[in-house]
Amino acid sequence: MALKLPAVVPENADVRKYRKPLRGTLVTLDDAGRVTITAIAREAGVSVPTVSRVLNGRSDVSPQTRERVEAILREHGYRRRTARNKPAANLIDLVFNDLDSPWAVEIIRGVEEVAHATGIGTVVSAIHDKPASARQWLQNLRARATDGVIFVTSDVTPPMHAELRRLDIPLAVIDPAGVPTIDVPTVGATNWAGGLRATEHLLSLGHRRIGFIAGPKRLLCSRARLDGHGAALAAAGLATDPDLIQQGDFYHESGCDGAEALLRLADPPTAIFASSDQMAFGAYEAVRQRGLRVPDDVSVVGFDDLPESRWASPPLTTVRQPLAEMGLLAARTVLRLAHGETIETPRVELATELIVRDSTAAPRTA
Amino acid sequence: MALKLPAVVPENADVRKYRKPLRGTLVTLDDAGRVTITAIAREAGVSVPTVSRVLNGRSDVSPQTRERVEAILREHGYRRRTARNKPAANLIDLVFNDLDSPWAVEIIRGVEEVAHATGIGTVVSAIHDKPASARQWLQNLRARATDGVIFVTSDVTPPMHAELRRLDIPLAVIDPAGVPTIDVPTVGATNWAGGLRATEHLLSLGHRRIGFIAGPKRLLCSRARLDGHGAALAAAGLATDPDLIQQGDFYHESGCDGAEALLRLADPPTAIFASSDQMAFGAYEAVRQRGLRVPDDVSVVGFDDLPESRWASPPLTTVRQPLAEMGLLAARTVLRLAHGETIETPRVELATELIVRDSTAAPRTA
Repeated sequence: MALKLPAVVPENADVRKYRKPLRGTLVTLDDAGRVTITAIAREAGVSVPTVSRVLNGRSDVSPQTRERVEAILREHGYRRRTARNKPAANLIDLVFNDLDSPWAVEIIRGVEEVAHATGIGTVVSAIHDKPASARQWLQNLRARATDGVIFVTSDVTPPMHAELRRLDIPLAVIDPAGVPTIDVPTVGATNWAGGLRATEHLLSLGHRRIGFIAGPKRLLCSRARLDGHGAALAAAGLATDPDLIQQGDFYHESGCDGAEALLRLADPPTAIFASSDQMAFGAYEAVRQRGLRVPDDVSVVGFDDLPESRWASPPLTTVRQPLAEMGLLAARTVLRLAHGETIETPRVELATELIVRDSTAAPRTA
Repeated sequence: MALKLPAVVPENADVRKYRKPLRGTLVTLDDAGRVTITAIAREAGVSVPTVSRVLNGRSDVSPQTRERVEAILREHGYRRRTARNKPAANLIDLVFNDLDSPWAVEIIRGVEEVAHATGIGTVVSAIHDKPASARQWLQNLRARATDGVIFVTSDVTPPMHAELRRLDIPLAVIDPAGVPTIDVPTVGATNWAGGLRATEHLLSLGHRRIGFIAGPKRLLCSRARLDGHGAALAAAGLATDPDLIQQGDFYHESGCDGAEALLRLADPPTAIFASSDQMAFGAYEAVRQRGLRVPDDVSVVGFDDLPESRWASPPLTTVRQPLAEMGLLAARTVLRLAHGETIETPRVELATELIVRDSTAAPRTA
């Protein structure tokens, strides 16, 4: 039989707010299947009131004890009731490194759509990869309430993560880069499959020498796109020629430089697959500066399907990342967590899709 | 001598929160120069407790009385103290018609920068030009607090405006379109001067036949850009040739169609001034589809300086609207209003600037 829960959890609390233990640890569950404060207290070797004091964020607990109790609460996926006793904030936070990424507005659109329909405001912030700015953001957040936070980055620092956990704020990560470094629900896209499809498309047009401009090496998504490209070549019986691979950083200038280097080769490629749209626009510029034309002289494929890919001249064939849908799913995820639901799959990858426009054609000599 | 203010205004209230009367109406001011509740009550012909009930939003006041008192409160620029008695929301709201405008992220950047530094969150919403969506937004807003609202549109409806006034929520409008329809602080850009500079630039390169693709007629900014263009022509002793003016809607396709029509002329222009960047990208595509090149065969100038104008091929010469700065100024304005300050100038236009890149050159035959 379970003891009465302490004052922070009212008798009529919605028991679904308490997740079942995630691991196999032996703990006492009450009739509703929730872990009890008594069990937490026993496991931590402290009294029930001490656990209650930790749960209430009171200061009359030693740091060591607090840490031990917090760890056990975390281990059992115990959700504090305190935050949920407050009225809903009716806000979710969407945090970018920078708002100058052309992705940003697409993701905002997706998150805002879900939030708006749910009666919730979307708070947009940028932390500029600066610890001071991130601290300021966290301080701003403490001055008001939020129902959950969505980070658009793979770089959620462990201290930030720990602090959000301590504040009992649900967290999800939209991670177009594909590096899940922390244990939170993550939404990404199928980068490998996208790389494969783009190169299959160029092969089907008759291209055999295909240049590739890669993204930053530290990001797994860069590797996944390159591997997909290589897999398509291999399936067509072609080897990956290292001369045809240029290192970029996803930004415009590196696409221009990479394409320029490819076009300077003695045997230049007839097509270039730039693994971001911005690099593809850079490739357009390199082609133009050599007095050549897309797609007459060189076909170009991008990756992202930013709105501007439709307005490029010629309109860009590219691999669509469903950025707005990724925002939408992340918003739903964080709201489910805010309602105390359990998320079944910690990482979801949404499908990429090849969008064929006017920047690809059969090679001149095919 | 002023009567004691009713309970909603504590004795230690910050008197700066009460604006001085805006007009010359004879009212009683207290020692701090603020209009008194007694004066309001006398002017409305009701008792002081009745004014107090209106101020407190109580339901035991007839609609007629409420309306009369509200009108007099408004007339004297009386700021309710109630909202200010609540803890600051630490939020400002930024409301777009649509988030798919390429402007959006620039404006968000500017607002977020001020808000973030002030410890305030930026709530981003889209109302999609739909009354139902706007009502939903207002309902969401009522469920939480906000320190102020910035609209990015000229289409703030009078009911919306009235409701925000009733809720005592400060309001500012970022209005790139230049149609201030309501009596609130507005931030715009110098559209006429921008139109003038762009055409002066083309004239200085030797162009004499300059095509112009106009924005929607209902927007004053469209007219201002066209007039600036005409003024530059007139200063150079050139008449405005109606054949050289095409009607667009600021979007990509209309730029493509307009440029196509201009290039089909028996005596086509050697340069095209598209009065938005998106229309300029459309002009690029029309030029490409005719097998011509920018700027070798046709120079193109845009208006906006969206981030993508740097990534266009060739990079676009354009008139910069300081969108981020407009966001920044609107945020500062709304925060000043939230602190009860008076805004001196209801409309501010920030300077536009010509950014010369690679899409303009001397005409072939000059």
